Amino acid sequence: MNNAQQSRQIRIRRSEDNQLTGAETDFVAIEEPLEVRIRGNAIAITMRTPGHDIELAAGFISTEGIIEERSEILEIAHCENGKANDGRNIVNVFLHPAVKIDWEQFKRHFFTNSSCGICGKATIESVQSLFPPITSNTSITTHILNTFPDKLREAQKTFQETGGLHAAALFTADGSMISIREDVGRHNAVDKVIGHSFLAERKLSNLILMVSGRVSFEIMQKALAHKIPIVAAISAPTSLAIEFATENKQALVGFMRNNKMNIYAGHEYIN
Amino acid sequence: MNNAQQSRQIRIRRSEDNQLTGAETDFVAIEEPLEVRIRGNAIAITMRTPGHDIELAAGFISTEGIIEERSEILEIAHCENGKANDGRNIVNVFLHPAVKIDWEQFKRHFFTNSSCGICGKATIESVQSLFPPITSNTSITTHILNTFPDKLREAQKTFQETGGLHAAALFTADGSMISIREDVGRHNAVDKVIGHSFLAERKLSNLILMVSGRVSFEIMQKALAHKIPIVAAISAPTSLAIEFATENKQALVGFMRNNKMNIYAGHEYIN
Repeated sequence: MNNAQQSRQIRIRRSEDNQLTGAETDFVAIEEPLEVRIRGNAIAITMRTPGHDIELAAGFISTEGIIEERSEILEIAHCENGKANDGRNIVNVFLHPAVKIDWEQFKRHFFTNSSCGICGKATIESVQSLFPPITSNTSITTHILNTFPDKLREAQKTFQETGGLHAAALFTADGSMISIREDVGRHNAVDKVIGHSFLAERKLSNLILMVSGRVSFEIMQKALAHKIPIVAAISAPTSLAIEFATENKQALVGFMRNNKMNIYAGHEYIN
Repeated sequence: MNNAQQSRQIRIRRSEDNQLTGAETDFVAIEEPLEVRIRGNAIAITMRTPGHDIELAAGFISTEGIIEERSEILEIAHCENGKANDGRNIVNVFLHPAVKIDWEQFKRHFFTNSSCGICGKATIESVQSLFPPITSNTSITTHILNTFPDKLREAQKTFQETGGLHAAALFTADGSMISIREDVGRHNAVDKVIGHSFLAERKLSNLILMVSGRVSFEIMQKALAHKIPIVAAISAPTSLAIEFATENKQALVGFMRNNKMNIYAGHEYIN
């Protein structure tokens, strides 16, 4: 379902300098829930922009540490239960029978993290035990990094139409864009673009993840799951994203605007 | 904890026109998890900017339909378990003993929405059964609405420091700002500003909710829970937000920039 409609034509009224217009045509980003199932169990529901749902599911289960290798996935497919409207919003992940799912850990991870006191530190530690810090000799120049925001914007076709979508893209260190994905949800855009490369068995550990918005720690965590050493963003990172990047030896670059950028962590990757 | 630190000083390096600087000082928005507990059970964990945690909890439990009246809350307080670092990230909600909690509905709502096929329509219907559509004779002029973006920006003190926070504010129909709250999470900013008025027993059904970012359907749902008739935003709404607003007779205004705006639903409230 990679050609799913991502935006929809609607009727709106506009006001300009306090003059109201009649009904006009505009475009809006589509938002619908996607349910991801493993072995019949719903493991996540996310509000997403339809399209690239298979990549979204693959990205999600790999960045959340449920699987590690492409070969663990036998197939990912939309639910075919006869009702088109339901099936397009449900995706079944068929894993190799040898893959063990720790449903209890799962439940804790997605819902009840909770029974004991958690704080920023505890959260970071629980993730560190899942994925080790990065060791990478990838590096990139500020000159090449500075070309990414324009490349992102040029590729954001749907954004130009609706102004309502986040984008995530993967670049090589010599500045080529491998893929870009858009979504109403920031995390979904990241899962989709990572899932795309993961399904193609492309190595991600020498790539740069670029996002259109801000960077929370979950974005750094998703990058870490695939050993992506450098994350760059148009907007600001949060405190936890910076702490996370520092502890896991990731580069974190933000506020990429007008040939300027801030380097929050991992400046050894940037020259 | 209304004077909690919302931003933190950090050391960064900058690059401008490909010239890297040495270490400099900057500010970043703080992101930490908050766990909300009712009768000892964790009902939600949200990544939030510390501060106004009591309002956040009050806003969350009321906009999610767990309680309806201010009087159902006896007290909301941070966990005091001797460990400062844990306690500040846990909030206990003490409800009146007569308040019945449907833990099963809860679980469905927050985690396993899921066992049957869901789609946009189903989601909307399940919320409609929770909160009825709005009937309101509140109206506002485009002239007054056009003053909101500047008022929001002027009040966004932390944003000016870090550039990393979403804002939500409540206005009266004659243009006065009642309160503004900021957070790394869009939903949290909305829960905080609504929680503030809810705890003060202020009627919200004649107010306008203004948000700095985009509008997903959850924002419309949170407004509907408190009968807020008009939601305005600097950025774009999603398709589901527009459908939700239309079905529930809410006004939805977006892209408020340079004295322009788009009216996506409820134009009878705008004149």
